[in-house]
Amino acid sequence: MSETPPTKSGEPKRDAAPRRRRPELREEKILLSHGSGGKASHSLIESVFADAFSNSLLDALDDAAVFPVDSGRFAFTTDSHVVSPIFFPGGNIGDLAVNGTINDLAVSGATPLCLSAAFVLEEGFPVEQLRTIVESMAAAASDAGVSIVTGDTKVVHSGKADGVFITTAGIGRVDGRVHIAQSAVQPGDKILLTGPIGDHGIAIMLAREELEIESEILSDTTALNGLVEALINAVGGAVHCMKDPTRGGLATSLNEIAQSSQVCIALEEERIPIREGVRGACEILGLDPFTIANEGKLIAAVAPAASEAALRAMRSHPLGAQSQMIGDALAAPPGIVFLNTRIGGSRVMDMLVGDPLPRIC
Amino acid sequence: MSETPPTKSGEPKRDAAPRRRRPELREEKILLSHGSGGKASHSLIESVFADAFSNSLLDALDDAAVFPVDSGRFAFTTDSHVVSPIFFPGGNIGDLAVNGTINDLAVSGATPLCLSAAFVLEEGFPVEQLRTIVESMAAAASDAGVSIVTGDTKVVHSGKADGVFITTAGIGRVDGRVHIAQSAVQPGDKILLTGPIGDHGIAIMLAREELEIESEILSDTTALNGLVEALINAVGGAVHCMKDPTRGGLATSLNEIAQSSQVCIALEEERIPIREGVRGACEILGLDPFTIANEGKLIAAVAPAASEAALRAMRSHPLGAQSQMIGDALAAPPGIVFLNTRIGGSRVMDMLVGDPLPRIC
Repeated sequence: MSETPPTKSGEPKRDAAPRRRRPELREEKILLSHGSGGKASHSLIESVFADAFSNSLLDALDDAAVFPVDSGRFAFTTDSHVVSPIFFPGGNIGDLAVNGTINDLAVSGATPLCLSAAFVLEEGFPVEQLRTIVESMAAAASDAGVSIVTGDTKVVHSGKADGVFITTAGIGRVDGRVHIAQSAVQPGDKILLTGPIGDHGIAIMLAREELEIESEILSDTTALNGLVEALINAVGGAVHCMKDPTRGGLATSLNEIAQSSQVCIALEEERIPIREGVRGACEILGLDPFTIANEGKLIAAVAPAASEAALRAMRSHPLGAQSQMIGDALAAPPGIVFLNTRIGGSRVMDMLVGDPLPRIC
Repeated sequence: MSETPPTKSGEPKRDAAPRRRRPELREEKILLSHGSGGKASHSLIESVFADAFSNSLLDALDDAAVFPVDSGRFAFTTDSHVVSPIFFPGGNIGDLAVNGTINDLAVSGATPLCLSAAFVLEEGFPVEQLRTIVESMAAAASDAGVSIVTGDTKVVHSGKADGVFITTAGIGRVDGRVHIAQSAVQPGDKILLTGPIGDHGIAIMLAREELEIESEILSDTTALNGLVEALINAVGGAVHCMKDPTRGGLATSLNEIAQSSQVCIALEEERIPIREGVRGACEILGLDPFTIANEGKLIAAVAPAASEAALRAMRSHPLGAQSQMIGDALAAPPGIVFLNTRIGGSRVMDMLVGDPLPRIC
């Protein structure tokens, strides 16, 4: 077996010995016994998870997935996902959980190798919905060329969770050409952004039942590892920092970078793409699009000499067609993000305060 | 930086540049804004998690922890923890979550390298309780020589979770001398167990408010990596399979092994240690101690020629002083576990059916 993550295939299982017949799942709703570790857990795992995620590591159903690796630098990350509603325009909690962890690896300059997935299910959750979520996870992982190799399932009483929470973790191999860190931005670096902001947060907000605003806005949930690979192939170590501006939005991510790197970031508002529908919804709801979550956008800080090549590489990728150079890193004042506004003014752009959109991811 | 996991130290941070003053956490209860990714999230992370878990990888607060590795075989695992009550005799959800993932790595023959920790918090959860849990996690990780290098925090509305759920994932380096798998047990192997069963499950059960049984039973939650290392040092590749019998207890774990390895496992009931308090509680509650969860016990299947040496090594370790050789793997009937009872009979020991003890871990 190579380090290449195992992919779904029709190969016979390693264990060719006769096995008991695969248990069937007769229940339509999740029961507490599905989290017991006993027979009901086995039937849930084998009938819902094992087929969808099938690969040689997962199929062994050992306590951990074991695989060979070559020496190098590894990246390791985790995220819990509690998004509400679970199904929303453009995705569901399953592909969001897979893409979110892939993106945390990608923005570290790492090629994702494999993922884990741990489920907390509420008693009574419909098995059909779980199947749909699991199929979305399998599809998202497959699209990104990654396998889900280990997992866990727990069940809590009705009223002690909210349908399903999913925690993914991931391991990736860091590209030897880059040394990405939130603290690595240099004065003079150009700040690039791959496309319009706020789509995910507004899609979730508008999907909540209490709102009656009609909109065509879809979540932008997607895996950024292909785009990141194209960017690194184009400019290598000239990429100093990458970040996907999720919770807290562009404003929070850029403030984190400015503080960690002790630089000032000066943005040009007119260059930051925002869809009309997102802008309109933000105006109606009194929200600042710069603090709204994204789930498929990349911020990159790139050395100035390589910035045009970086922008071309990003625009050449389907997920970066609307990329823009949105600002510059400056030496002072350190730790501050400024926005030069459309109307010719300038204001400090702080990170998100409070929480206008709980449970966005 | 070496592959050795980073340890807590008084070293100055890598980033010696002036930073903003660390935000203080003024709230006594968790608010939705603590999960927003913005300022409140930062104050929670920096005042509760960062100090307790401090190490060079985590302190960078990047999207993923990045560290160098040497080539070899790696193990990767995850578990969600939803135990109720959160605090119980002998431990809490925090050390349980750390030990659980360390043990899944250890029973794969892996030395744990680093862990992730993802928290789902219920709005209103007391910050003091969270601090206690986090300190227990830090202590458990430190005891086992492992660092928590990356994490995540989400908050859901009051009534949409149950205090706190914790999902840990872990990476370990597999010892080159062993090839552990659930499917690797051979007829003739001896089955060894490190101590009395059922302590964790009964401690949780008796801690639930609805029960009025007095008892001194403590959860056995502990990290088994040191014991496993001693065992591998003693007999190396003669260890064919290891498992920590958590949810579903000894009976479920042995059935999983018997089915995966297509062997019969024959047990001697009189050799399986059970504390009097656990036996008594099981009788009162109508529970089978063989299906009750453990969180600090090891099952090992060892080649017969090495089994006495393995038993000595296990007994020489503080966590294995009460180790016993409890049975044998036989060629037939495959996939079945038999118990030769104290009174001279014999019965099939099936895996757990139903769920007498929900939310045990």
